[in-house]
Amino acid sequence: MSNKPGIPSGTRDFLPSEVLKRNYIIDTIRGIYARYGYQPLETPAMENLSTLLGKYGDEGDKLLYRILNSGDFLKKANDTDWQEKNISNLAGQLAEKGLRYDLTVPFARFVVMNRNELTFPFKRYQIQPVWRADRPQKGRYREFYQCDADVIGSKSLLLDAEMVLMIRDVFEALKMNVTVRLNNRKILDGLSQHLEAGDNFQSLVMTMDKADKIGIDGVVEELTKQGFSEAQTDKLKAYLGFEGDNRAKIRFLKETLLNETGKQGVDELEEVMERLAQYWSKYVDVTIDLTLARGLSYYTGTIYETVSRDVQMGSILGGGRYDDLTGVFGLPDTSGVGISFGLDRIYDIMSQLDLFPSGISKGSDVLFIPMDRRCELAAMHYADQFRHHDLSAEIYPDLNHKMGKKFKYADQKGIAYAIIIGEEEFTGSFLTVKDMASGEQKQLKQSEAIEVIKGIL
Amino acid sequence: MSNKPGIPSGTRDFLPSEVLKRNYIIDTIRGIYARYGYQPLETPAMENLSTLLGKYGDEGDKLLYRILNSGDFLKKANDTDWQEKNISNLAGQLAEKGLRYDLTVPFARFVVMNRNELTFPFKRYQIQPVWRADRPQKGRYREFYQCDADVIGSKSLLLDAEMVLMIRDVFEALKMNVTVRLNNRKILDGLSQHLEAGDNFQSLVMTMDKADKIGIDGVVEELTKQGFSEAQTDKLKAYLGFEGDNRAKIRFLKETLLNETGKQGVDELEEVMERLAQYWSKYVDVTIDLTLARGLSYYTGTIYETVSRDVQMGSILGGGRYDDLTGVFGLPDTSGVGISFGLDRIYDIMSQLDLFPSGISKGSDVLFIPMDRRCELAAMHYADQFRHHDLSAEIYPDLNHKMGKKFKYADQKGIAYAIIIGEEEFTGSFLTVKDMASGEQKQLKQSEAIEVIKGIL
Repeated sequence: MSNKPGIPSGTRDFLPSEVLKRNYIIDTIRGIYARYGYQPLETPAMENLSTLLGKYGDEGDKLLYRILNSGDFLKKANDTDWQEKNISNLAGQLAEKGLRYDLTVPFARFVVMNRNELTFPFKRYQIQPVWRADRPQKGRYREFYQCDADVIGSKSLLLDAEMVLMIRDVFEALKMNVTVRLNNRKILDGLSQHLEAGDNFQSLVMTMDKADKIGIDGVVEELTKQGFSEAQTDKLKAYLGFEGDNRAKIRFLKETLLNETGKQGVDELEEVMERLAQYWSKYVDVTIDLTLARGLSYYTGTIYETVSRDVQMGSILGGGRYDDLTGVFGLPDTSGVGISFGLDRIYDIMSQLDLFPSGISKGSDVLFIPMDRRCELAAMHYADQFRHHDLSAEIYPDLNHKMGKKFKYADQKGIAYAIIIGEEEFTGSFLTVKDMASGEQKQLKQSEAIEVIKGIL
Repeated sequence: MSNKPGIPSGTRDFLPSEVLKRNYIIDTIRGIYARYGYQPLETPAMENLSTLLGKYGDEGDKLLYRILNSGDFLKKANDTDWQEKNISNLAGQLAEKGLRYDLTVPFARFVVMNRNELTFPFKRYQIQPVWRADRPQKGRYREFYQCDADVIGSKSLLLDAEMVLMIRDVFEALKMNVTVRLNNRKILDGLSQHLEAGDNFQSLVMTMDKADKIGIDGVVEELTKQGFSEAQTDKLKAYLGFEGDNRAKIRFLKETLLNETGKQGVDELEEVMERLAQYWSKYVDVTIDLTLARGLSYYTGTIYETVSRDVQMGSILGGGRYDDLTGVFGLPDTSGVGISFGLDRIYDIMSQLDLFPSGISKGSDVLFIPMDRRCELAAMHYADQFRHHDLSAEIYPDLNHKMGKKFKYADQKGIAYAIIIGEEEFTGSFLTVKDMASGEQKQLKQSEAIEVIKGIL
């Protein structure tokens, strides 16, 4: 057998230079989360399908990866369903486990399972891959990382505000110019009441959510097709068309949304904005976005979204407050708030703008090139010393290769220094250290070489 | 719906304290790998089943997790197989992807796919979870991490020796007392020739591999049942029963294994031992183990295994040299060598022996406790300052909770200092800093508080 090997469509191998850059982003996010008292949690890649199904809508259910039961996977298949090839019934009989679709549902499941051991408000971050059987396309993968932080067990809007501070700190650290968009789900409810949209709330919100793609006119057109009256769409146009800074928007909302839900949403949004008043950053704009809906999922209060100001790329962060995430697992009335950074898009933007610090994906500090077997043993000794001084050191393992090939290895791997050990060096107890960038060569004692390579000398 | 939620058998949630300890081990291994010039690679959780099947023996094939094709998963099902419920045929028709079973086969697949872009010898490390549908039992999970390093594209035994140095560095760093067992697959081949075992090589090796569980007598008994003659088992007894230090073992092997394969294996083993001669460590014993076989997989040269000297736990590391890992994917004659640390068992041993440094899983440095809304805004300001000084800081978010509850939160989360901000502190511009361990309370200015908490003052 010698098939040409490949990997499943929508998945990726990550080369060393990519892993190191991805880890730079992950470590930055992890560090900020930890600074705010969030602690790491990890959950299994596989969850029971009973945990996952029904949590992401019909569309989400279809995108779940299901794992065939091990051993005799037909054991639980119903005969009639088998004969009739009833796919939707059989799916549940052949597969009881699925791959994690996001980190929020496993988090809710975890909180409910461990509610008696946890200290509330419980703050956790979780940085793990998720899987979705989506159609692969540019920037959309079937395996991708989410970087979530959630706190559950407090309704305090202090926490909603701190989410924005964490976003600020991450993008300041990554030197990315972003806009954080804020809204509140209660404002959307209030708007729906204001428009007397009634049962059409869902389509109203989902259509509004497309405003940045299809424009306000596009939204109005779609809603008109869906049966919204001109009186309704006129009100909506005035609402969506409102322009002004955050203060003006809050004032406008207070004048426009006179129902209780709307008022509460505006009050919450205003409080979050007030708490953030003194924490601006040149990298991070915070702006109220009246069209922002973030789908219809479980959000009940503040909603967050973040986009790059320099690259057209869609949302690189989403999040919000939810009042009943754990209810479906038997723990009702537990409020929380969370955000999720999209690693892949952040990576793509930083690559495009060349924002990764140089040196992230450099090679080893040193490549030892011994000239014969005796020198090779000496190289092992030197390499051991260098490594104990926190330098990364390799020994070129094949004596019989040509020198050109050895230097090419150092070059291609981005190794900073090559150290040749031949007869002369062996007997003279010095090292010939070549700076691979400049080509400059120096004869140094071991201790001097270590200092030069560490940049001390 | 309010099912009691659970997770699939054989999988685990990792609490913050566990994640932090696991990351301590992972970071240690990662750091050592990097010091030897190994660079990180990541591959997808899902591989095509054509990549995985047939690589782990029949038993392994059964333990693969298969992922149901998305959408109409019956589309490719053969009608006859469907009617006859032919499980083994249907498995391949309903599922084309499977979960990664180890990191070695994906590595080989990656090397073949990218052979024209890689610099050889190619050194990579990979630390990711793998999945096996094994029967869960104590210390055996269905999802577990492997921590692999491999170098491919060189036959130099320098690299075999460096694997042992990496093992030494890791266990020195973790302060674990271990024994590294070494053998060479060619010595096993030579032994088989010496015993004239012929076609029974496989059962010979697999039975010998159990010697540490069933003893030499047990091995002889089993082999006798399998049809080995007394002449053969007598030779084997002399071989397995040989006692002596590494030097004596090499001498004995040289005298006993007179066939070419055996001799070559002994020469290789001797060379690896010689290269390691000056690199002992009190934490790490290196010993030649004549019974060591590490299964029958792809190894062709040096074989490694590591066990704890303090805790009975089975192997915590395995590895070896292989001459044709990539042949099955169309790239023959490419020799490599690699090792794999078992994270879970190392974690269990370190927990049992209390080897984790204290402070790994401590809570935040500071919990601010504001007494009213105005103090809460001040707390946000202080927390922001503290975080910019690399301290982790939380603000207790619920003003109306009792003080006892707030201190209990700090206690349970292992937070080092609580800082109360009330009327007095607000107007006086100082902070009341309580050391949660000693209970001692001090009134400090912000800059002093930061220094005290950082341990500078």
